[in-house]
Amino acid sequence: MEASIVTDPTPASSNTTSIGGPVVPSVSKLRPLGPGEVTVTGGLWAQYQELNATVIIDHCLTWMERIGWIGNFDAIAAGGAKHAGIEFTDSEVYKLLEAMAWELGRAPKPRLASRFDALVARVAAAQDPDGYLNTSFGHEGQRARFSDLEWGHELYCFGHLLQAAVARLRTGYDDALVGVARRAADLLYQEFGPDGRVAVCGHPEVELGLAEFGRATGDARYLDLARLFVDRRGTGTLAPIDYGQEYFQDDVPIRDATVLRGHAVRALYLTAGAFDVAVETGDDGLASAVAAQWEATVARRAYITGGVGSHHRDEAFGDDFELPPDRAYSETCAAIASVMLSWRLLLATGEPRRADEMERALLNNVLASPSEDGRAFFYANTLHRRTHGTVPAEDHVSARADTTLRAPWFEVSCCPTNVARTLASVALYFATADDHGIQLHQYGEYRVDTSIDAGPVALAVSGGYPFEGAITVHVRAMPAAGATVSLRIPEWAQGEASWVVSSTSAIATRGDGVLVVDGLVTGDVIELSLPCGPRITYPDPRIDAVRGDVAVERGPLVLALESADLPEGMDVNDVAIDAASGAIPTAAGAAVTLLALGDNGDGWPYGTPPKAEPTVIGQIDLLPYYRWANRGPSTMRVFIPRA
Amino acid sequence: MEASIVTDPTPASSNTTSIGGPVVPSVSKLRPLGPGEVTVTGGLWAQYQELNATVIIDHCLTWMERIGWIGNFDAIAAGGAKHAGIEFTDSEVYKLLEAMAWELGRAPKPRLASRFDALVARVAAAQDPDGYLNTSFGHEGQRARFSDLEWGHELYCFGHLLQAAVARLRTGYDDALVGVARRAADLLYQEFGPDGRVAVCGHPEVELGLAEFGRATGDARYLDLARLFVDRRGTGTLAPIDYGQEYFQDDVPIRDATVLRGHAVRALYLTAGAFDVAVETGDDGLASAVAAQWEATVARRAYITGGVGSHHRDEAFGDDFELPPDRAYSETCAAIASVMLSWRLLLATGEPRRADEMERALLNNVLASPSEDGRAFFYANTLHRRTHGTVPAEDHVSARADTTLRAPWFEVSCCPTNVARTLASVALYFATADDHGIQLHQYGEYRVDTSIDAGPVALAVSGGYPFEGAITVHVRAMPAAGATVSLRIPEWAQGEASWVVSSTSAIATRGDGVLVVDGLVTGDVIELSLPCGPRITYPDPRIDAVRGDVAVERGPLVLALESADLPEGMDVNDVAIDAASGAIPTAAGAAVTLLALGDNGDGWPYGTPPKAEPTVIGQIDLLPYYRWANRGPSTMRVFIPRA
Repeated sequence: MEASIVTDPTPASSNTTSIGGPVVPSVSKLRPLGPGEVTVTGGLWAQYQELNATVIIDHCLTWMERIGWIGNFDAIAAGGAKHAGIEFTDSEVYKLLEAMAWELGRAPKPRLASRFDALVARVAAAQDPDGYLNTSFGHEGQRARFSDLEWGHELYCFGHLLQAAVARLRTGYDDALVGVARRAADLLYQEFGPDGRVAVCGHPEVELGLAEFGRATGDARYLDLARLFVDRRGTGTLAPIDYGQEYFQDDVPIRDATVLRGHAVRALYLTAGAFDVAVETGDDGLASAVAAQWEATVARRAYITGGVGSHHRDEAFGDDFELPPDRAYSETCAAIASVMLSWRLLLATGEPRRADEMERALLNNVLASPSEDGRAFFYANTLHRRTHGTVPAEDHVSARADTTLRAPWFEVSCCPTNVARTLASVALYFATADDHGIQLHQYGEYRVDTSIDAGPVALAVSGGYPFEGAITVHVRAMPAAGATVSLRIPEWAQGEASWVVSSTSAIATRGDGVLVVDGLVTGDVIELSLPCGPRITYPDPRIDAVRGDVAVERGPLVLALESADLPEGMDVNDVAIDAASGAIPTAAGAAVTLLALGDNGDGWPYGTPPKAEPTVIGQIDLLPYYRWANRGPSTMRVFIPRA
Repeated sequence: MEASIVTDPTPASSNTTSIGGPVVPSVSKLRPLGPGEVTVTGGLWAQYQELNATVIIDHCLTWMERIGWIGNFDAIAAGGAKHAGIEFTDSEVYKLLEAMAWELGRAPKPRLASRFDALVARVAAAQDPDGYLNTSFGHEGQRARFSDLEWGHELYCFGHLLQAAVARLRTGYDDALVGVARRAADLLYQEFGPDGRVAVCGHPEVELGLAEFGRATGDARYLDLARLFVDRRGTGTLAPIDYGQEYFQDDVPIRDATVLRGHAVRALYLTAGAFDVAVETGDDGLASAVAAQWEATVARRAYITGGVGSHHRDEAFGDDFELPPDRAYSETCAAIASVMLSWRLLLATGEPRRADEMERALLNNVLASPSEDGRAFFYANTLHRRTHGTVPAEDHVSARADTTLRAPWFEVSCCPTNVARTLASVALYFATADDHGIQLHQYGEYRVDTSIDAGPVALAVSGGYPFEGAITVHVRAMPAAGATVSLRIPEWAQGEASWVVSSTSAIATRGDGVLVVDGLVTGDVIELSLPCGPRITYPDPRIDAVRGDVAVERGPLVLALESADLPEGMDVNDVAIDAASGAIPTAAGAAVTLLALGDNGDGWPYGTPPKAEPTVIGQIDLLPYYRWANRGPSTMRVFIPRA
């Protein structure tokens, strides 16, 4: 990290053409682009955005209607107190509204728009006159407002409401949902603000909701309340719980912590919100603390898929290098939250590594959650499934981390709606601008249409990425004075990336993790080639759980061995890899030489080393991790024992 | 396993001199000895029995008095309904009564006897007129009797009451506690018997309590009720729970299962009870099913310490070979329950391997639980502690598996009382008899005084075991016709055991896992020498979590590396072992050559293999696993990476 993250940033370019994305800092090194400025035109992301638009959003809406989570709002509006589902089901409705809002921001969709308005109307009808809004608390026959801050999740729900309203504002609507959010935020300011109760919520989220709602509305009170919640954290306002105070990061003040710990989603939402506060208040100490915590977490507590969280029991980070593949909790929401944090750091610092992290988490952990048909989801994302999972019944509300295949819905169903809002807004993470030009952080097929000080800039990015490494950038429009385009070179491609710039004026120079092309004019073409062949990856020897194993990656994709690709009757627990023979590219991913895994006899599994010579099974296909478990029950592993 | 376990057993010798131990099958290959027949005279077990008698039992009594768990009985007797602690605190009082009963069976102790009687009187006063007894359910202001069989643990508590009464009967007392138990068992028979409700308890235990109480009292109804509970299991009488039905073994009938699964303590108590039922009803199918399940569990789901249970979340078995050392739950109670099951199998089959299993679990997992001062306990027994644990406050009731050092007491405090009853009765597992002589299963310093058909037999076992391998058996008395003494040769000693028999008449022959000495007469001496030097042990390559690691064992003891033995500032996560150099014996355990563990750089822990040459740290001491964490907070590991 550079010494100062936020105290002396390059001011963002003036934001003339865009309303903005999920995060719009008032000062930042890089300026985020808005829905009108980045458009996906094809490839993998178009496929997933289409799946989201046509299946996933409907799926979430249908489920929440069917099992009464939306009806909870009607019940409150009608004066009832009965509540379907766990305490914080409201948050899923808000995350779905956020997904719908971003989806409507991509293109006009009259049917979706009317469903959105109808849903907002039902939510609004449940809001109390003073702005309070929650279907589990605060009404006759229910527990009192804010009476269970440890587990009640009321402020968490408010946070998601605010994020949904931000999506609405950033896509051009100051509508009923924004009004609901404003009244709710005003109530929170009164209840928990400078003259209010000194408390925080057991599940962080309201911090980043308030900070961004403050940015989007220009109301400094909301940001100030976010700051208060951040400052109060770690001072012991929450009552002790069995999991320990680190579970909800109330063990130590944020600025004094050195690594993320406790419940992974809580930790990441909290630090993302804290970083927003740091940026807006010019608090470099806080920003640096968050950045250092994330550095330490990525270095020692992250899975190769970008997933985080090693413990099932408390959905929490483990100790340094405690990264069991078979008990990876690696919650989908935690990977999404990590994208939110990395994005904030990227905007503030411009460090390409932060875009590497986002790419890894998105392409591996997040995309693994939805099934190919968009009707079922992984909540936890294991890196090793030892036994064939079962197929959950279509109408079954599943537990969070059972050993089924992807499930249509969960008792705590945070992941499907989180996937929906992420897919709807994912293009907003692809590129940024600054005074001098455009930064391309992610690849695929998309267009950028924005303006910098010197004038309009338009680019078209294309290529078969992430499956192929040839990336082409057509310069569709440039200011007369020329502009700079920088292209991220991922960490795994260092040393092997190459490029050709077809231009009469441009000069390409290699920066730290980027290719910087200056002096571009309309009509120029940049061709960047990344080494997207398969490669063998060795885990750090300090990761006990995968010692003696290797993984296979291809470009940004982590590959996996699934039993469906093994000879009949074998499973992934029976094999070892001939790592020295490497991996050869295939249409699906890669093929490797597998051998039978040894054993040291049956009866008692501790004794003398196995003596048998391993026998070769043959060349076996690996597929991208995110695609596993789409062919029925199977066993799967990412890390494979070395023969 | 032999084809038939129980259908054609050798009838047990007539039981003339002993009242018996915790388990007395009506038919068995080997006859268990009672408190008067085995007496510990010195060594490790004398030390722990003394600790139990002078500290642990008092500790449990004091804690349960202080926090109201004993007072719960007074409250019910006084007509109140208020209850301290979780629903099943009664069971801890019963396990303590069992411990006290076995302790009183070892030798008369007037002060303990009066405390026992006083405690029994308080328990008895809380029994309802119809025999129902529970301080959490069934009284005004409480939930109704048997209204929450999934989680209420009422039958579980009754099971422990019955086991305590069995201890009393087997040590010669048919007293008030036995009367309480009889009335309780009668109520259960009425409520859940052939004409009663078709149901089982979420936590098995009543099955083995009823079976043994039936054996001890001769009342066939109790055994029949045990059989009903066993037969009903796995037929879905319990409502579905989040953890899945395998959590409480209601997923499949016991005789159809192939391996232990779900909650480890539940699984082991259940199968122990099922085996008792199988033995008493001559149900060889059921007995063989249980035996096969235990074989599969030992072969694929057990830790090197004899511990079982890989999951913290549900305290459950993992899949085959899912044995993470750092997330070993390895509950103390599960190891104790495994001893109970192995003992039943040993009595029925005579297989020495079952005594190997008991020794491993007792000397490693069970003894690790109490601190050296007897005032704190491990509930979960990890095989790898990555971070320094904290010291729980003296007056703190701890969560079950937090990362503290041993805790004085727990919210669910099943382990301390389970340790107490096990230590008080442990000598009853050391030896057995049959028509021809005596079988010595465990070693240490103790005397056997019993009779076989031919007349009285008296032996004295001595030696420094488990620290030294020289075991001496003095024949103090033998029938004129001579008798056979068999001595177990542990699996790890096969091929290296040697012996000398000083006798004019005896002939020693090597059997399968035993040394059999025939024709012994009074005055003979057997000297068995087991190879108790340190040895390097390789885990089966199918155990992913310790691939590339080795452990060091010495005789029956698993050794551990503790940071207290490393140079200042290092911890166990930084080192690798030079396995080729072996281990050398030391006073405490063994010394091995350690090297610095490599890494592949900081920042992102997946990439190219580490290149640095390892540097030698030096010869470092390992100590017996059961002794770790007695020198303050430390890091510890059993499996050490191979350099």
